[in-house]
Amino acid sequence: MVEKLSPAAREAALASLGGWSYEPAQDAIGRAFKFKDFSEAFAFMARVALLAEKAGHHPDWSNVYNKVSIHLSTHDAGGLSEKDIALANQIDALLV
Amino acid sequence: MVEKLSPAAREAALASLGGWSYEPAQDAIGRAFKFKDFSEAFAFMARVALLAEKAGHHPDWSNVYNKVSIHLSTHDAGGLSEKDIALANQIDALLV
Repeated sequence: MVEKLSPAAREAALASLGGWSYEPAQDAIGRAFKFKDFSEAFAFMARVALLAEKAGHHPDWSNVYNKVSIHLSTHDAGGLSEKDIALANQIDALLV
Repeated sequence: MVEKLSPAAREAALASLGGWSYEPAQDAIGRAFKFKDFSEAFAFMARVALLAEKAGHHPDWSNVYNKVSIHLSTHDAGGLSEKDIALANQIDALLV
């Protein structure tokens, strides 16, 4: 069972995740990504899909041409959990 | 230059596209798809991505686990065009 992060744990995690914003209404984190074109955006999405499937933890995400918007929260925990922070870190690592 | 469909052409096109709904506010069409799991949903998305890239016409779409929601409209035409109808037909053909 995954537990929802405490406010203190959340603050600490967010401080280490540069580009992600906290979304209080959903107790989620979100980040918008912009690429050169659809081909680059979808290539990124394919890599994120593989990470998500491996983690058994999937994003709520959308795409329009070169833009990808990703939202992470943990349904079973009723909000943000360590799973979201871990996946966000793996996603960010794709772009380094 | 792609032209926006006339109301009559739109009605005729929609009549031939069973699962798609007209979204007047965006002059777009949308359809929701549901799959067994994320793996099936993303496999479908990969196939749609290839169709979209080949057509040079890209969807506004989102995914949560086994659900995929697709919206089509043509930016250059300021609304729904033949390009959207053609892509919607190609997407539907993936599921036959």
